[in-house]
Amino acid sequence: MTSQIASLDSDSPKEECGVLGVSTSGGDSARLAFFGLYALQHRGQEAAGIAVADGRAIRVHKDQGLVSQVFESGTLDPLVGDMAIGHTRYSTTGSNSERNVQPYVVETMHGPLAVAHNGNLVNADMLRVKLLERGAGLQSSSDSEVLALMLAAAEGPTWEDRLATVMPRWAGAFSLVILCGTKIIAARDPWGFRPLSLGRLSTGGHAVASETGALRTLGCESIREIKPGEIVVLQGPVARSHQAMSPAIDGARCTFEHIYFSRPDANWDGMNVHKARQRLGEELAREHPVDADVVIPVPDSSMPAAIGYAAVSGSVYNEGFVKNRYIGRTFIEPTDELRRQGVALKFNTLPENIDGRRVIMIDDSIVRGTTSGPLVRLLREAGATEVHVRITCPPIAHPCFFGVDMGTYEELIAHHLSVAETADHIGADSLGYLSVERMMKALGRDDGYCNACFTGSYPIPVQLQLGDNKQRFDGVLQ
Amino acid sequence: MTSQIASLDSDSPKEECGVLGVSTSGGDSARLAFFGLYALQHRGQEAAGIAVADGRAIRVHKDQGLVSQVFESGTLDPLVGDMAIGHTRYSTTGSNSERNVQPYVVETMHGPLAVAHNGNLVNADMLRVKLLERGAGLQSSSDSEVLALMLAAAEGPTWEDRLATVMPRWAGAFSLVILCGTKIIAARDPWGFRPLSLGRLSTGGHAVASETGALRTLGCESIREIKPGEIVVLQGPVARSHQAMSPAIDGARCTFEHIYFSRPDANWDGMNVHKARQRLGEELAREHPVDADVVIPVPDSSMPAAIGYAAVSGSVYNEGFVKNRYIGRTFIEPTDELRRQGVALKFNTLPENIDGRRVIMIDDSIVRGTTSGPLVRLLREAGATEVHVRITCPPIAHPCFFGVDMGTYEELIAHHLSVAETADHIGADSLGYLSVERMMKALGRDDGYCNACFTGSYPIPVQLQLGDNKQRFDGVLQ
Amino acid sequence: MTSQIASLDSDSPKEECGVLGVSTSGGDSARLAFFGLYALQHRGQEAAGIAVADGRAIRVHKDQGLVSQVFESGTLDPLVGDMAIGHTRYSTTGSNSERNVQPYVVETMHGPLAVAHNGNLVNADMLRVKLLERGAGLQSSSDSEVLALMLAAAEGPTWEDRLATVMPRWAGAFSLVILCGTKIIAARDPWGFRPLSLGRLSTGGHAVASETGALRTLGCESIREIKPGEIVVLQGPVARSHQAMSPAIDGARCTFEHIYFSRPDANWDGMNVHKARQRLGEELAREHPVDADVVIPVPDSSMPAAIGYAAVSGSVYNEGFVKNRYIGRTFIEPTDELRRQGVALKFNTLPENIDGRRVIMIDDSIVRGTTSGPLVRLLREAGATEVHVRITCPPIAHPCFFGVDMGTYEELIAHHLSVAETADHIGADSLGYLSVERMMKALGRDDGYCNACFTGSYPIPVQLQLGDNKQRFDGVLQ
Amino acid sequence: MTSQIASLDSDSPKEECGVLGVSTSGGDSARLAFFGLYALQHRGQEAAGIAVADGRAIRVHKDQGLVSQVFESGTLDPLVGDMAIGHTRYSTTGSNSERNVQPYVVETMHGPLAVAHNGNLVNADMLRVKLLERGAGLQSSSDSEVLALMLAAAEGPTWEDRLATVMPRWAGAFSLVILCGTKIIAARDPWGFRPLSLGRLSTGGHAVASETGALRTLGCESIREIKPGEIVVLQGPVARSHQAMSPAIDGARCTFEHIYFSRPDANWDGMNVHKARQRLGEELAREHPVDADVVIPVPDSSMPAAIGYAAVSGSVYNEGFVKNRYIGRTFIEPTDELRRQGVALKFNTLPENIDGRRVIMIDDSIVRGTTSGPLVRLLREAGATEVHVRITCPPIAHPCFFGVDMGTYEELIAHHLSVAETADHIGADSLGYLSVERMMKALGRDDGYCNACFTGSYPIPVQLQLGDNKQRFDGVLQ
Repeated sequence: MTSQIASLDSDSPKEECGVLGVSTSGGDSARLAFFGLYALQHRGQEAAGIAVADGRAIRVHKDQGLVSQVFESGTLDPLVGDMAIGHTRYSTTGSNSERNVQPYVVETMHGPLAVAHNGNLVNADMLRVKLLERGAGLQSSSDSEVLALMLAAAEGPTWEDRLATVMPRWAGAFSLVILCGTKIIAARDPWGFRPLSLGRLSTGGHAVASETGALRTLGCESIREIKPGEIVVLQGPVARSHQAMSPAIDGARCTFEHIYFSRPDANWDGMNVHKARQRLGEELAREHPVDADVVIPVPDSSMPAAIGYAAVSGSVYNEGFVKNRYIGRTFIEPTDELRRQGVALKFNTLPENIDGRRVIMIDDSIVRGTTSGPLVRLLREAGATEVHVRITCPPIAHPCFFGVDMGTYEELIAHHLSVAETADHIGADSLGYLSVERMMKALGRDDGYCNACFTGSYPIPVQLQLGDNKQRFDGVLQ
Repeated sequence: MTSQIASLDSDSPKEECGVLGVSTSGGDSARLAFFGLYALQHRGQEAAGIAVADGRAIRVHKDQGLVSQVFESGTLDPLVGDMAIGHTRYSTTGSNSERNVQPYVVETMHGPLAVAHNGNLVNADMLRVKLLERGAGLQSSSDSEVLALMLAAAEGPTWEDRLATVMPRWAGAFSLVILCGTKIIAARDPWGFRPLSLGRLSTGGHAVASETGALRTLGCESIREIKPGEIVVLQGPVARSHQAMSPAIDGARCTFEHIYFSRPDANWDGMNVHKARQRLGEELAREHPVDADVVIPVPDSSMPAAIGYAAVSGSVYNEGFVKNRYIGRTFIEPTDELRRQGVALKFNTLPENIDGRRVIMIDDSIVRGTTSGPLVRLLREAGATEVHVRITCPPIAHPCFFGVDMGTYEELIAHHLSVAETADHIGADSLGYLSVERMMKALGRDDGYCNACFTGSYPIPVQLQLGDNKQRFDGVLQ
Repeated sequence: MTSQIASLDSDSPKEECGVLGVSTSGGDSARLAFFGLYALQHRGQEAAGIAVADGRAIRVHKDQGLVSQVFESGTLDPLVGDMAIGHTRYSTTGSNSERNVQPYVVETMHGPLAVAHNGNLVNADMLRVKLLERGAGLQSSSDSEVLALMLAAAEGPTWEDRLATVMPRWAGAFSLVILCGTKIIAARDPWGFRPLSLGRLSTGGHAVASETGALRTLGCESIREIKPGEIVVLQGPVARSHQAMSPAIDGARCTFEHIYFSRPDANWDGMNVHKARQRLGEELAREHPVDADVVIPVPDSSMPAAIGYAAVSGSVYNEGFVKNRYIGRTFIEPTDELRRQGVALKFNTLPENIDGRRVIMIDDSIVRGTTSGPLVRLLREAGATEVHVRITCPPIAHPCFFGVDMGTYEELIAHHLSVAETADHIGADSLGYLSVERMMKALGRDDGYCNACFTGSYPIPVQLQLGDNKQRFDGVLQ
Repeated sequence: MTSQIASLDSDSPKEECGVLGVSTSGGDSARLAFFGLYALQHRGQEAAGIAVADGRAIRVHKDQGLVSQVFESGTLDPLVGDMAIGHTRYSTTGSNSERNVQPYVVETMHGPLAVAHNGNLVNADMLRVKLLERGAGLQSSSDSEVLALMLAAAEGPTWEDRLATVMPRWAGAFSLVILCGTKIIAARDPWGFRPLSLGRLSTGGHAVASETGALRTLGCESIREIKPGEIVVLQGPVARSHQAMSPAIDGARCTFEHIYFSRPDANWDGMNVHKARQRLGEELAREHPVDADVVIPVPDSSMPAAIGYAAVSGSVYNEGFVKNRYIGRTFIEPTDELRRQGVALKFNTLPENIDGRRVIMIDDSIVRGTTSGPLVRLLREAGATEVHVRITCPPIAHPCFFGVDMGTYEELIAHHLSVAETADHIGADSLGYLSVERMMKALGRDDGYCNACFTGSYPIPVQLQLGDNKQRFDGVLQ
């Protein structure tokens, strides 16, 4: 299932996951969680779940599918309670099995616990082995189970104490939302890889979510980012904060949240993502100018960057591709034979805006290099006299170990080909990537970001061979 | 089900239907039909179906749901044959019952017949009564059944003869695709209300479809419009044409195909739809100029018009709304209480592009007037100092009887309020509709279009009381 | 799907269909119809449906599956009205397509009409051609559509008049229930092939059903058979009867209703079916006595006959087979390899009642001869020293054209083998069939029954080649 | 869902669970497991599952529903391997949640492990608390998880060693089948509460199952019971046995397996269940004789006992009730109003065998006393002049804590009413229960059985308050 979806998706990094938590005072937390997840749907379309607590017990509903498929009329009815957490999932290292769908719920000696998280621990295998060695049983290949079982066995009088105790043992990315019987606890790793923000509900209570857009969908005010290393406890109308770990000296926010993942209405690190993309486009125009007639975005994520590029370059902005809005959920694909006959499922062109023109095509990234070539060819077939490809980030030459499915070294085109070779490969008249320096300039930051996929300089040491142990666990799953 | 989808959709006219036909020489027509329907999905998301003929029998698969839901892995396997027709449905006067899902298939004295059509007959009730009076039984409230049963009883040696015989009795809009055992017949009403085009498949054979974008998705070449009153017969590698009826003197193409329905990559009446929308925006800037800082489209259909408006007005084009791409398929909605708390399911704003600015908001149309007000309010909450609403068509003051669900007189805001009152109602600083004259100027045409929803001047006399008889038939359905 | 179910079923004639109608005065007719269908489930497990009228419109819900699968919680809610008809389906000559599921509902010039029927017309193909020739379209291969469309075009002021007009044109078996807006009409063919009875509901109103057991399940009193050729009209609290056609001189009740089809609690032709079977067993003991130790029924239908056989023969009655109650709804079957290994899905034996004993095995019928052999073998493996097979009807040597799926001449073992050869074929020490004379004696009747499957003497002339036209119509279906 | 099924079921103790294991040498173990589960379906209709090992990994498929619903065409395909275990579930103390569906699969430090079990541990809550106290997390309320996590943490070089280590800590009933990567381990508690038998497959390899009938369905030979306290290891073609614990001095086989649970073709404790039931009937006739005309069983489980009673009493055996074979899977029930009108969903009578007769009605047990009354009333309505109820076991006055859902003290009618009062309550002319002594005489045993539900003398001390802790765990589940 996954592989087919992947083959239909554009050549962008795969989405990660979205998490949220809602603590109302007397309200219908599950319904709010549903609407919040809806606004996080772009962060993972494979599975979704909501766990709710009413002060005594935790109830969960989760399944594979879109948020709107998992939660149908009536599904929310049994999820009664003031506190809810939710998750939308795109698989990373874990398998896509039903068992890995979050929130993960478990009974512990301190009562029931539900965990939803976004990110990836680089020492998960080692932690897993340690758990097994002390006699635990593991039912999934998901990091969430590792987090939950370590919490279950941790020392400390409260869940936030126990969380503070075990957090230092977790190396990697985790934006985490925990539901226990009587409160919600949100935490972010000290590097700050993945986003997580906090807002106040207009009716009292608070919400946390991967993106501020989801908080705004819930009508939140006073939205602020949860800090790297911070623990926030939501309980009734109150939100308490505790800096459990010092932020890492070298912060490691994921630059790709700005480039591709987050929805344009997200604010992160004090920046609006749409504006950040527009600036990436502006900076790209400065670094790789070219004389052309029209600036065309690859929809939808590159639109703001194309607007920015056009504004600086003086070339006209216009649409050149029409994207089928319904693509991405079919399991019937054109055969190779049909592709040769010209059956094009995803994009059509607008020759009126292309024919006889020199085109600048703006895209967010090139990962495997499988999409750019066909898009350049479509533009030429529509009559473009020149096609100049401009990318709003540097070449991706290294895998991500912190929760983004970039692919392996083998799969990354920038690991094999130079920029000139890549231009040749995709048939572009010219190809320009934004440099790391310009990219950071566009973001207005000198450091504090993880650019390992561009530079190979990982903020935490990683084992480059994943797999063996993972395979073993995947085998257990249905 | 329908009503809920409606309440989530924007205040645009409801989509109609999409039809297509594929005649291959030896190929897998069902798979091609599937990909073609995929590209017509925006014309109807409620049901889909494909009927296939292998020279002997007709097999059909159809159901309620999106194309990708109706056709899953394996569903196409039994649909073996060289010829296929397909349909995506949005209900018009018929009920949404399963029985009305097309293609409609029936055994006749001349062999099996499948019919798919887009449009609406204004004399359907009378035709239906005539059928009943000669002893027929009707199983649906769909016009397709009327068309099929009249064909079944028509005189003439071939299906195209029989079609030519009965066509003059059909008053209204019909873009029609018929599958019999050995050929596909496509026809368009003499007024030309709904689009229908023909193309040649690269491997031999031909295809017809409501929009040229779908033909291009199939890799078609030599695409041309089927003329009003024309019958085209596809058989093996051959396409034969026959002008069965003279085109009506007053052609009646639906202007709304340009304004809203068609995908931007469609060409119709010699025009590209994206370009047409851009021109509507340009003309709108000339008719209703206003001094402002930024031109913001209501996504997605108004983007080209906003680009056009910005180019002429000199104001900057930028995005101001973020639309949830996954909206429209959920049956869980915010309660009124949640709406009051600010839960906003469909749109978020980008305050960075709005705050402190005078905004021109471009939308394609105002039908019931339920969406514009909330959008204006969102812009103001995001800091807009002024909000000027510009609409790329005239006020819609009359219902459509030719296949577009505009709503009743009661529902149409322009039936009740003047432009100034409407501006007041939606809270805009100013409101400008494109006039009929300017609209036609943008399209480069003097006549040949149906503008009845704007002018009340219907190209065919219509009974203004639908309903009674319709109710009676709806009652039969599940 | 069907073929697999068939292969799991015992070697008995396939069940036919069950029909019912409920006319309450103010009550919930759909719920009553549901419980009635439940009690008719044994007459057809492939599809079920209920149509309801409230005096104005007819609403229907029908689908493939068991009654309990087709009608789930909430499904009945929209079926509001005082009058309901229902149907459980086992396919006969029609295909198993969804389109053939009954009740068949159609709009006519006299208003909506729903039809459910049990039986088979032998002149259906001719009637179908006549309908097509007058320009009708047919959407199914079901006789119900033929009945309905003929009714729709018939002359006469009321539905019962129109029914009386067309009934004489229908040659074959029909126990028919018709729902129009304001009444229910039940009718039985003049030969009386299939059962149909009438009862009075304790709360006013009436019900008709294929079997009296279903009427008793509904709490009916004053239950009586509807006579061959009789039309009964249910309207509010009243039931009016009209002898539309004289009963055929040679009545043709289906003997197999007594032998196998009907549930033991049915009364038909003044006889209780359990008692009739017991008498068939008694008569069988008189016609084919054998000295043995134990009389063992093939469960479940042969139990009463075995009790009767044991009583007359003096041998002990006991159970020898255990039948898996859950068989019949799986699509996973043992491979031939597994069968060779002894995997036995349906029956296990009770060696304690068999080992070292001379066994008389009682079965209702031998059709294709595929089950008896394995059962005899199972008895021998369990230690039976002798196995004498006794069958409660004569050899089935001719197909049925009146609604029972006996199989073709090719398939019927009695068409190919003599009794001695059959005994040999199934490995029995002896084999005795009840003769036609003894069978009729057990039923206490001289004539009035159709025994064509035993004698080849059909009560209505039949064309022995079905198929050609049928194929043509099946091709239209999904 | 459950409650409704319960209300439709007869007033017998609820079924328990069925387990099985299949070790083939090179064969398709999953398919065999499927057929075996099919033959154990009567032991639990709420959920089913199969786990398969191929020497490396374990794969599982499980879900709520009947075996034939959980496993459809294609479901077995991924379950590749030589070894399989399976489970059919009826919920006991655990909730009916999806999480409790077995087999339970977990990764441990010794590799993957799957567990299926039948029975109930009386010290499960204490064991659960101990697991939590050492930091474990529990995801279900099922004993299987407790068994598996204790095994995961146990000492010993092999799984059978670890099993032998922890078995003494388990107080209660467990017939257990364990699948690890390379072998199947079956074990039975030292009291021998629940059945478990071993057989040799005709193609090599072995199978274990709750009932011998399932082993015979698989074509097994050399079937023998697994002894209380015995561990059997299946590996390739070999079956190794190890008496891990001495059988308890007071064996505690569940008498109800003979009375009601097991299918008549099961052999247990050297006895055939059908024969045992026949003897219970014979003994009942001796203990509670009555002069009457006909002996009528409540179908289906009381048929053998009625045959036995009739043989000893000299009264005639005959059927008097017709049971709807399709009952039990619907969620639409008669309203009270409909019941008052006589709507009788489950049983109809055969007045021909009842009217004017003195009836002895044989039933297996009276638990809550809700079914006997209506059945007696049905017999009287059918004309019985006297109704004498005879029950093939003693009054059930105490709950079961070993895996049978008898209900609570509150619910048991024998806890509240004397035999005379019960007779009065159900409207019988006389009521006779088999005494414990006569029952054991019929079984030919003096001791070795658990009769606690009759006597209150529990073979293992039990806490009479279940519930608190259970509630807490149920709350965690969806």
